[in-house]
Amino acid sequence: MSKGQPSVLLHLFLPRVIDTRRSTLEDPRFGGVEAGGTKVVCATGDASGSVRERTRIKTTTPEETLRAVVDFFEDRPLEAVGVGSFGPVDDNPDSPTYGFITNTPKNGWQHTDVRGPIQEALGVPVAFDLDVNAAALGEHHGGAGRDVDAFVYLTVGTGVGGSFMQSGRPLRGLLHPEIGHLRLPRASGDDFAGHCPFHGDCLEGLAAGPAIEARWGRSPADLPDDHPAWEVEAHYLGIAVANLACTLAPERVILGGGVMHRRQLFPMIRRVVRERLGGYLDHPRFTEHLDEFVTPAALGDENGVRGALAMARQAAQYDC
Amino acid sequence: MSKGQPSVLLHLFLPRVIDTRRSTLEDPRFGGVEAGGTKVVCATGDASGSVRERTRIKTTTPEETLRAVVDFFEDRPLEAVGVGSFGPVDDNPDSPTYGFITNTPKNGWQHTDVRGPIQEALGVPVAFDLDVNAAALGEHHGGAGRDVDAFVYLTVGTGVGGSFMQSGRPLRGLLHPEIGHLRLPRASGDDFAGHCPFHGDCLEGLAAGPAIEARWGRSPADLPDDHPAWEVEAHYLGIAVANLACTLAPERVILGGGVMHRRQLFPMIRRVVRERLGGYLDHPRFTEHLDEFVTPAALGDENGVRGALAMARQAAQYDC
Repeated sequence: MSKGQPSVLLHLFLPRVIDTRRSTLEDPRFGGVEAGGTKVVCATGDASGSVRERTRIKTTTPEETLRAVVDFFEDRPLEAVGVGSFGPVDDNPDSPTYGFITNTPKNGWQHTDVRGPIQEALGVPVAFDLDVNAAALGEHHGGAGRDVDAFVYLTVGTGVGGSFMQSGRPLRGLLHPEIGHLRLPRASGDDFAGHCPFHGDCLEGLAAGPAIEARWGRSPADLPDDHPAWEVEAHYLGIAVANLACTLAPERVILGGGVMHRRQLFPMIRRVVRERLGGYLDHPRFTEHLDEFVTPAALGDENGVRGALAMARQAAQYDC
Repeated sequence: MSKGQPSVLLHLFLPRVIDTRRSTLEDPRFGGVEAGGTKVVCATGDASGSVRERTRIKTTTPEETLRAVVDFFEDRPLEAVGVGSFGPVDDNPDSPTYGFITNTPKNGWQHTDVRGPIQEALGVPVAFDLDVNAAALGEHHGGAGRDVDAFVYLTVGTGVGGSFMQSGRPLRGLLHPEIGHLRLPRASGDDFAGHCPFHGDCLEGLAAGPAIEARWGRSPADLPDDHPAWEVEAHYLGIAVANLACTLAPERVILGGGVMHRRQLFPMIRRVVRERLGGYLDHPRFTEHLDEFVTPAALGDENGVRGALAMARQAAQYDC
C-alpha cells in the first residue's frame, strides 16, 4: 500500500462513505421495524448500528398500523429500511408476494403486504424478513453471535422460533423452517397434552410461555425459581439444543425471548445438554465449555429492531 | 467473443482438457476409495463419473489394508484420489492430522493416517472425508440428489449417519454432526432400552440394524414385511425426517443403507412425516408430494465409492 499523500487518499474515499442523497453524517440514516402481533417497534439508527430514536406502535389493523409506521419515518432522512415481521411471511425476493404476511391466524393480517406500502411511501429500499431472522441478525451484529460464524438463535416466548445463521445469513430451505416444532422425548412424568394447534406436544406446544401457563395454571412470571416447572422446561430446551448440536454442530445456541429472562434456566439447560450429548460430539464446546455454547441473547428484547436496522444497512449495501 | 479462427482456438484450449501427465483420454483418471470397517471398495472412474474398474478389500490392519489399496491403484494412471472413510475422522484440511481416523472403537485403527500413505505412494492429490459425506456427494452427482440444491442424506445400517448437502457441499459445523444421535419421542409401547453405547435410546440406538436385531431377537433380514418391527422403525425414521424438515426445510431426504433396502418402509415413513408435520410447513413438498421429499438412495450401496470418485474429480479441479 502506498504511503504517499494519505490526506488525498482520504479525500478520495470519504465521499463514498458520507455523501448520500438524503442524509448527512450527523443524521440517522437507516430505519428498522420490528413488527409483532401486539406491538410494532420502529427505530432509526446510524451507520455504526447504534439506535438514535425509537417508538412503539400498537398493532391494530394493517392500514392503521402501517400508516403509523410510515408517519414515524416520513420526515427522517433514510437510505433504507429493514422490516422483521411476525409470520408466516413470504421472504422470497423473487416472489410476487415478497414482503407479505401469509396465512397468519391473526385477524385482518392474512395475506397482507407489509413491505409494499412502506417502500411506496418512503421511496427507499425496504428489506423484509421473518422476525426471528431479524433478531438473529441483531445478535450477529454486536450481540451474542458477534464472535462466531455459525449459530442458532432460539426465542422462547409466546411461541418458539429459531434461525440458523451462518456467515451472517439465515439458512433458508424450501421455506424458513423455524425450528420451534421439533418432536422430543417427554420429561419424566409430564403428561401435559401440549398447546400447539398444529402438533399438540411439539417443542412449542410443551415449552412456550402459554404451554407453561396451561400446564401449571399460573403465568410463568408467577412461578418461583425453584418450581418444578423449570426442570421440565430445561428438559425440553436442553434436548432441543442437543438435537440442534447433533444436526448442525453450531458454535453457539443463543436463547432469547420472554421465558429466557429466567436466568436460572441456563445452567439447568446446559446440564441437560451435557447429559444428552454424553460426550459423543468430541469438541470442547460440547463437553467442557457449555457456558460458551448455550448463552443468553446479549441484546435482550432489542435484537429484533437492531437486526432490522442491520437489514437496512445491508439493503443500502452499506457495511454488511 | 471473437468469431475468428475457431479451429485455432480449439487447438489452444484442447490441451488443457486432454493432456495430462499420467493419463490419456481413454484411460480412467480418478480413484475412489470407500473405506469401511469390514471392507474397502476401490474403484477407478472416468471424467464422466462412470466407474471403470473396482475391487473389494477386506479391512484388516491399517498397514495391510492401505498397502492393498495402493497396490490396486499403483499402475493405473490417475490424476487424483478421493477417500470416504468410516469415522470419526479429522476432515479439516488445515489440521496436522487431516485424513486421520481419530478415536474409533475399531481395534488398531485409532489415530490412523489413512490419507497420507495413499498420497505418498501415488503422488497425486488425495481428498478425504467422512463416508456419509462421500455417499451424499455420490447422490448429488447422478443420484437422488442430482435435481435439488439442498438435501439430507441419511444412512440406516449398522449405525445411523447423515449429511446435509447444500450446493454440493456438506454442512460442516464445529465438527461433522452426523445427525444419527437425535433424541426422539418413543413409539407407543416400545420400551427397548436402546443400543447406542453413548446414548442408549437415541435414533441410532433405536433404529439402526443392530437395534432392530436386539429388540426383536432376529436379524432385520429375517423379519417379514408385515412384522410390527417395521411400524416401530417407520415411527423413529419418520419423526427424525419431520424434525429435519423443521430444522433445515431441505428439498429432499434421501434414505440409504442396509435397513432401507426394505422398500415397504418408504410409504410408512412418509405417512409418519405427514402426520407429524400436520400441515405446518406450508409447502407442497411437505404436504402433497412426500413421495418426492422422502426417497430411496438412487445409487444404492454404490453411492460411497461414486462420491469418492467425485471428490477425486474435485481435487483435480476437473468438473465439479
